[in-house]
Amino acid sequence: MMITNLPKGLTIRNSKPSDHQRIISVMKDWWGGRDLTWMLPKLFLVHFCDTSFIIEKEEALLAFLIGFLSQSKTNEGYIHLVGVHPNYRDMGHGEFLYHRFFQICKANNRDTIRSCTSPVNKGSIEFHRKIGFNILQGNAEVDGVQVSLDYNQFGDSKVLFEIKI
Amino acid sequence: MMITNLPKGLTIRNSKPSDHQRIISVMKDWWGGRDLTWMLPKLFLVHFCDTSFIIEKEEALLAFLIGFLSQSKTNEGYIHLVGVHPNYRDMGHGEFLYHRFFQICKANNRDTIRSCTSPVNKGSIEFHRKIGFNILQGNAEVDGVQVSLDYNQFGDSKVLFEIKI
Repeated sequence: MMITNLPKGLTIRNSKPSDHQRIISVMKDWWGGRDLTWMLPKLFLVHFCDTSFIIEKEEALLAFLIGFLSQSKTNEGYIHLVGVHPNYRDMGHGEFLYHRFFQICKANNRDTIRSCTSPVNKGSIEFHRKIGFNILQGNAEVDGVQVSLDYNQFGDSKVLFEIKI
Repeated sequence: MMITNLPKGLTIRNSKPSDHQRIISVMKDWWGGRDLTWMLPKLFLVHFCDTSFIIEKEEALLAFLIGFLSQSKTNEGYIHLVGVHPNYRDMGHGEFLYHRFFQICKANNRDTIRSCTSPVNKGSIEFHRKIGFNILQGNAEVDGVQVSLDYNQFGDSKVLFEIKI
């Protein structure tokens, strides 16, 4: 479901460095027990605030998106990490965050957004497809999905996504 | 020792995405057995090429610096990771890379460079001091050095460096 405004009581704002601890502390729960906290050293919360967003309900963290404008590829934005509280899924919050990121990218003359996920994360693959991302050609196919093997390092394969905005 | 030109046979160039695998493959050796490869997902080699550098001798990798211009803090540059081949240390290559990074930062109107290291990495602390970095106030002192406890996450403390260029 595409929502154009957040439901009453929910707010969105740019992330700030002090959000780091809160995000880190929920990640394992939100990723079903997988510990991906190594993917989010504090630098992402310090240096990419203007393209990263937090959704809150009162004080509680409901969802976040950590993204940045590519420095070398001046037409690209990159979405590094997105999480939604398990009790608030399938309500459009993830898509809302993506579209907010697309907005800031457009305002900075970016026409291409990239992202990636692990082949095991079927929910993320489905989510990206629903929004309109294409899956880039990899060097293997897993469960019918193109996968780039050993992308980050040996054993850390990724499904690569791209969308033109 | 401060070198203003690389010795004959050594070359410096911007990093490119295909350098990722080469860098990852030497890191454990270069860090004395510590595996810090999780700190360098491929995105750093894809999106920050114009502020990251490689020193090579013929085809061999001798040293690298991965840094970027902070997006949110528009007067800052950030040095994320630097490595020098163990057989080529104390020859000024690290300092050469830092000064090349300072140059590109100055050209982009940055007057402050930040970096950090683990308290256990005495060589890195000494190196930063020698170049002229200040150590920022932390919330603890370890072996006479200010340390920010649990900086990246619980148990991952850092010494934070800053220099005005």
